[in-house]
Amino acid sequence: MKMLPGIGVFGTGSVVRIIVPFLRAKGFVVVAIWGRTPASAQNIAKELSIPFYTSKVDEVLLRKDVDLIFVLCSPHLHAQISVKALGIGKHVLCDRPAGICQNDALKMVKASQYYPSLISIVNHSLRFLPAFTMMRKCLRDNYVGKRIDLCDVRIRISSLIDETEGYDWTCDERMGGGILTLVGSHVIDLLSFLTGLRATRVHGVIRTFESETARVQGIRRVTAPDFATFQLELGGPINDYNLLTGDRPPLLVTVQLMSSNQAGAFNQELVITGEAGALWVKGGDLHGRRNNAKEECLYLDVEDLENPTGNESLPRPYMKGLLKMVGALREAFQSVEDRRGWVKEPVADAATFQDGQYVQAVMEALRKSSRHMSWERVILADEEEQDLNNPLLTRAAAMLRHP
Amino acid sequence: MKMLPGIGVFGTGSVVRIIVPFLRAKGFVVVAIWGRTPASAQNIAKELSIPFYTSKVDEVLLRKDVDLIFVLCSPHLHAQISVKALGIGKHVLCDRPAGICQNDALKMVKASQYYPSLISIVNHSLRFLPAFTMMRKCLRDNYVGKRIDLCDVRIRISSLIDETEGYDWTCDERMGGGILTLVGSHVIDLLSFLTGLRATRVHGVIRTFESETARVQGIRRVTAPDFATFQLELGGPINDYNLLTGDRPPLLVTVQLMSSNQAGAFNQELVITGEAGALWVKGGDLHGRRNNAKEECLYLDVEDLENPTGNESLPRPYMKGLLKMVGALREAFQSVEDRRGWVKEPVADAATFQDGQYVQAVMEALRKSSRHMSWERVILADEEEQDLNNPLLTRAAAMLRHP
Repeated sequence: MKMLPGIGVFGTGSVVRIIVPFLRAKGFVVVAIWGRTPASAQNIAKELSIPFYTSKVDEVLLRKDVDLIFVLCSPHLHAQISVKALGIGKHVLCDRPAGICQNDALKMVKASQYYPSLISIVNHSLRFLPAFTMMRKCLRDNYVGKRIDLCDVRIRISSLIDETEGYDWTCDERMGGGILTLVGSHVIDLLSFLTGLRATRVHGVIRTFESETARVQGIRRVTAPDFATFQLELGGPINDYNLLTGDRPPLLVTVQLMSSNQAGAFNQELVITGEAGALWVKGGDLHGRRNNAKEECLYLDVEDLENPTGNESLPRPYMKGLLKMVGALREAFQSVEDRRGWVKEPVADAATFQDGQYVQAVMEALRKSSRHMSWERVILADEEEQDLNNPLLTRAAAMLRHP
Repeated sequence: MKMLPGIGVFGTGSVVRIIVPFLRAKGFVVVAIWGRTPASAQNIAKELSIPFYTSKVDEVLLRKDVDLIFVLCSPHLHAQISVKALGIGKHVLCDRPAGICQNDALKMVKASQYYPSLISIVNHSLRFLPAFTMMRKCLRDNYVGKRIDLCDVRIRISSLIDETEGYDWTCDERMGGGILTLVGSHVIDLLSFLTGLRATRVHGVIRTFESETARVQGIRRVTAPDFATFQLELGGPINDYNLLTGDRPPLLVTVQLMSSNQAGAFNQELVITGEAGALWVKGGDLHGRRNNAKEECLYLDVEDLENPTGNESLPRPYMKGLLKMVGALREAFQSVEDRRGWVKEPVADAATFQDGQYVQAVMEALRKSSRHMSWERVILADEEEQDLNNPLLTRAAAMLRHP
């Protein structure tokens, strides 16, 4: 059997504890781990029996036995590590969202375009959950009819603040913490995956209800939002296939996300209603009903998981999607002789860095909408923000182009 | 036993078929019924064994044996009939919403203020549902803590279009049809009842997904909305008691309403989440959870109903609330010797015509918001629209006041 690529992991959070055993179960070798401090790196390396640990980014990236990088650390480091890794010639899987802003994601997009022979995907694991791949197929088969009326998503999850760490990035909106970036990003991506459409205008209300926790009190406040309700108009087709035909108005999406220890156990439901019926995914199961007939179960999640319990920081559907994605990655590498060689087909449905940039653009529009109490257009940047926002640089760049 | 007031009913719809037996069971006598056409009046009079029927409004209002009017006809007639009835000296219970616009409701408010000795209430029956009266009490007792974060309401109901009638007011937004006026009005009123607060700013998206039905096709289109999603900021205290204390920001409310034969069976859920727990009403039951403890049932709807089945046009919680309201009306009259005399206490919690005007003001702001894709302030008019919108009349009125 072919030897799979060696993996270097960035990050020490709970998702790392879950994914490393997955990777090993699928035959990957985890050869190195990076942590923010030498102590945190050492601790997790010991816990997960990873032979090499460090707190220096390059010491992972430059290793010859590392071919594939899993960037699972704080979002403010995503762009820096991903871009450098691609430059050194490593495949990259980056956690969601891609960086902390669209500018970060754009840097990643440019690097991925510069190195098209390398894998560069964002960890939007719900794309690999069987219930959603099946739902996508049903939608294309017009299960709910040609006219789709509404996509509605509701997610309730326990607090996303890492209470073991005191004040860290999970408490801070600007560092990428909060329900919009950690859960909303998945939803925004998933909706595009399901419908073949992108949001063009958005409206949102984003709130931080719980600004103090047992560990974060006094002068420090939690700024990461724990609530978001938003509406998207999906009007921009990504490619030939999409769910808007003819001269239909944009497809309406409504989303409500809440992370709270008071709101009850994890619950996730996505419903798509159309003229002839409805389809809904609850947990890992897909249900449907057509033309007032009885509800039918279209996919029942009975598959055995090697780690079936799930946990608070990675609920079951996300964990299962992640496991499937790791399986797809394995397939992508398995079919080529060379250790670093791969084929696209098994990971063709994975979220690209471009998808990651789109998600950032939607989140930026939503934050602006919530601040200004207005509907906002989604603006996909094609220049880095620095240039766009600095009039001097913009003028200089324009002069260089048209002297 | 005291003789209860005689009742005249306006309307021939399904709610009339449900309420007349209720009224009789509580000891009221239904003496006259009005229908839009002589034939429709005759049919329902025969069906419900009501001795007198007519298609002329005055023929009900002027009857000596009619003391209390139930206005259950098309909303565009609410104001005209209610105002006239009060002028003739009859008590009035008017179906929701009060008329088709705030101007209608304002006329009703003025009439009710002119005749304070007459009962004038709007049929917002959910105020009388035990689960909500209990929820209100729990909120006042700080069950979810002092800081309330969110009220979230979701209602799914079958199509509100009267398919037996062909094209009628239920298909027409301007005639008072659609989910916002028929269901949203209840929700807007209920939220004020529960929190003691009124909406000051609103944002909504209102849609008509199903613009054709089996009976309404071709050049006629359904304009009555079958979907609404909206956010309210509750910031205006109605009276001393309310759920905003100190300098808290406005309370956020999120509502999603859908009427569709594709969306599944009737479902209604209202959740209020706060710093220390959550309370929710599902159907007729009240549940709660405090500080991560186990969910508890605070009110279980086991009470026997004389007519327990419910039906599509009046789901069980509304029917049950209505029955309780009729019971309260009976009590209000029962305790006074004179047939037309009454005491306020049993109906003190009923929605007044002022409440009806507030609901219209919120709905107007929501329609404007949906049209303009903007947040809108709720504006309670104190002059009739005619005067306000006509610059000549306004100037004339100003000159009369300050010559």
